Amino acid sequence: MRIITIGREFGSGGREVGKRLADALGIAYYDREIITEIAKHSELDEKYVEHVLETGMPHGTFLTFGHTLSAASVVGIHPATSVLAAQRKVIRKLAEQDCVIVGRCADVILKDKNPFKIFVYADEKSKLARCRERTPEHEHLTDKQLLKKIRKIDKGRAKLHSLFLGGAWGDREEYNLCVNTSGTVIKEVVPCIADYVNHWFENKK
Amino acid sequence: MRIITIGREFGSGGREVGKRLADALGIAYYDREIITEIAKHSELDEKYVEHVLETGMPHGTFLTFGHTLSAASVVGIHPATSVLAAQRKVIRKLAEQDCVIVGRCADVILKDKNPFKIFVYADEKSKLARCRERTPEHEHLTDKQLLKKIRKIDKGRAKLHSLFLGGAWGDREEYNLCVNTSGTVIKEVVPCIADYVNHWFENKK
Repeated sequence: MRIITIGREFGSGGREVGKRLADALGIAYYDREIITEIAKHSELDEKYVEHVLETGMPHGTFLTFGHTLSAASVVGIHPATSVLAAQRKVIRKLAEQDCVIVGRCADVILKDKNPFKIFVYADEKSKLARCRERTPEHEHLTDKQLLKKIRKIDKGRAKLHSLFLGGAWGDREEYNLCVNTSGTVIKEVVPCIADYVNHWFENKK
Repeated sequence: MRIITIGREFGSGGREVGKRLADALGIAYYDREIITEIAKHSELDEKYVEHVLETGMPHGTFLTFGHTLSAASVVGIHPATSVLAAQRKVIRKLAEQDCVIVGRCADVILKDKNPFKIFVYADEKSKLARCRERTPEHEHLTDKQLLKKIRKIDKGRAKLHSLFLGGAWGDREEYNLCVNTSGTVIKEVVPCIADYVNHWFENKK
């Protein structure tokens, strides 16, 4: 089994790394489709699911969430909690075959499967440039406003992650490889990362 | 110019990564020889130089150390300060040609040369195993004692680094690539890292 999880700072190109890595390894890639699946499982609106997973749990969420909690058992508690339960269920199901999963705390949810864990990050200048290039809806924002948005999303990711992990999101100890995309052309370096990952899985056998 | 600096946790295999990477890239490699050079320049004992660089500056060291300080100007101040001045001078001299430099705060000292900065780390189980395998003098230590030693050396490295940088040693933001050697065979993954590094320098041109 080759499961690769990718944590990433907003705007660092983590999604591109993930997609290209899955292509290079010839395995499945999951990113936004996880949101759709979670929405289906938890019978909640996709936008709401996305909001919970991007900002961390809303204030006042009932915190009995744990490993044994399933979507079926969360009747009567805060809907954000059922998002987390469904997230766990969906990700465990997807990871029954080789795949790359971007975000959604997959590294923690799949810990027992011993995935190869990558963290993708970049300096703020590079993240600003990438956001401007990829997302036209950022056009009306000043650099300062866009940076504020980037930091807020990453803060949400860290918050959500710490609920699962107890440790800090982005701490290198939690990952096998931390890749700073500043100054790199992702397309060019992904084959190197794919080789690295393959050697790691080879050695595990 | 291709300058690669390697920061590393004690026992993580950073030295092996550095040596093999220099071989793969066909460039010079500097590690312990820096200590010898610093001792020559500062006219201090090699053991003392090593002690300062492994434990951080001793308590009470005069802290006016700065970018313009040279070995010649430190007459009359604490010898640890002249170690740092000589360290700077030696490393700047070595980095006049392509090279891999392991440790010794080279990443900070050579910041203006925009080196490719790697941080090598591992989990404690792997570091213990590596230390036992490589260094027979650790034989008489229990795991607990050896871990204590590893943590102490890393604490010293962090301390010394923060004097130069103001930031924390090992923080991923400071590096281009952070490599966790746990579960990897260094010999096998170094060619992947060398490819990655080459692409990065190619893109800088």
